[in-house]
Amino acid sequence: MKNLIIASTSTIHGSGYLEYILPTLAKHFKNANTILFVPYARPSGISHDQYTEIAQKAFKKINKKVVGIHTFKNPIEAVTKAQAIFVGGGNTFVLTNQLYVNQLITPMQNAIKNGTPYLGTSAGSNICGLTIKTTNDMPIVYPPNFNALALVPFNINPHYLDPDKKSKHMGETRETRINEFHYYNTPPVIGLREGSWLQVNNNTIILKGELSARIFEYKKDAYEVTPETNLSDLK
Amino acid sequence: MKNLIIASTSTIHGSGYLEYILPTLAKHFKNANTILFVPYARPSGISHDQYTEIAQKAFKKINKKVVGIHTFKNPIEAVTKAQAIFVGGGNTFVLTNQLYVNQLITPMQNAIKNGTPYLGTSAGSNICGLTIKTTNDMPIVYPPNFNALALVPFNINPHYLDPDKKSKHMGETRETRINEFHYYNTPPVIGLREGSWLQVNNNTIILKGELSARIFEYKKDAYEVTPETNLSDLK
Repeated sequence: MKNLIIASTSTIHGSGYLEYILPTLAKHFKNANTILFVPYARPSGISHDQYTEIAQKAFKKINKKVVGIHTFKNPIEAVTKAQAIFVGGGNTFVLTNQLYVNQLITPMQNAIKNGTPYLGTSAGSNICGLTIKTTNDMPIVYPPNFNALALVPFNINPHYLDPDKKSKHMGETRETRINEFHYYNTPPVIGLREGSWLQVNNNTIILKGELSARIFEYKKDAYEVTPETNLSDLK
Repeated sequence: MKNLIIASTSTIHGSGYLEYILPTLAKHFKNANTILFVPYARPSGISHDQYTEIAQKAFKKINKKVVGIHTFKNPIEAVTKAQAIFVGGGNTFVLTNQLYVNQLITPMQNAIKNGTPYLGTSAGSNICGLTIKTTNDMPIVYPPNFNALALVPFNINPHYLDPDKKSKHMGETRETRINEFHYYNTPPVIGLREGSWLQVNNNTIILKGELSARIFEYKKDAYEVTPETNLSDLK
């Protein structure tokens, strides 16, 4: 009964918050009047209220109400009763830590497995993978665990960036970093470029958007997959 | 009695491994014939032996012998007895985890505080700060702690990169990431550009190299400091 959109980014260059994906979200959330927003990742450290306002403005365009999970006394109950869930981007370590602190990992997994439609962008997509070990974020807080929601049988790398061959910078490329991941971990990693998302319905996983994605499997050369590729067998 | 070089990178664009800093290292390690190399960070997943060979080749040019810590039965004793220590770059999480696994945090701190000359590059510089919370690396392993060697009273961000104003990428800039760090942590952060290093002698900390560095202090606007600036009061 799973029904997820796992998006690389909330925002593509030159466009408003969620704008590129709003038509898809209107369908995705067609049975929900109200969306539970999880603002824990706090991009640039903005408050939960400020972040929720940004989500509210975007979803107003498709006539959806958005409520922040931080406004509930009992966040577990908020998740259990939600018509739909949206976890926004920001810092994946901060987000993951807050999910553990509020004991939301299992309630989120159960709600989503029971059919509550889910949208994740960036950090909210990272947590859909097995672990947060392929986040790009800075580890500004120490979460009790790197294990994530494991709603798909692989890891996500959002905001995937191709190596810049002209760069004189000596820091690792994204591809190098993901290859290093595979010296210590075996699950596949999907590098999702900005504007791409995964549509998950039950056990069917399809790449959506206009761009190809880059797949990194343990002990294999990385390869590209085109939009509409069925990734259900990737594990 | 501290005597450290904390370098942003081992290698600058268009130059060989450690080449830009070898004349400085010849002075820094003038009283050591043999340098203990810590290859734990394993850049691109290379083996400890392969990584040690790279360090050996570079230090041969200034007539220093390099031995890998992994060749010792007792790594704690290797650190305690070392004439000099070099911790190379790679993945900061892998490095930190291995230091904890081998119970090397306190022995390293003691050796360095007692005057053993130290060189760190990249990940090997990150661990000189209070925590590894300002690393750029991917969290591919889960270390028991983010606390580091705390040899300087602030955090390091190596390979510091200025925002690329022409970029269409929506992932966070380095400056945004460090500002997010300050929503959860109060210590200063030094963004060290490639080619810069900190020279630490006892409690005197001087910025070296040809480039300015960017300082991020809690609740202050970020600012630049020029080479030869004394950073001893930064805490």
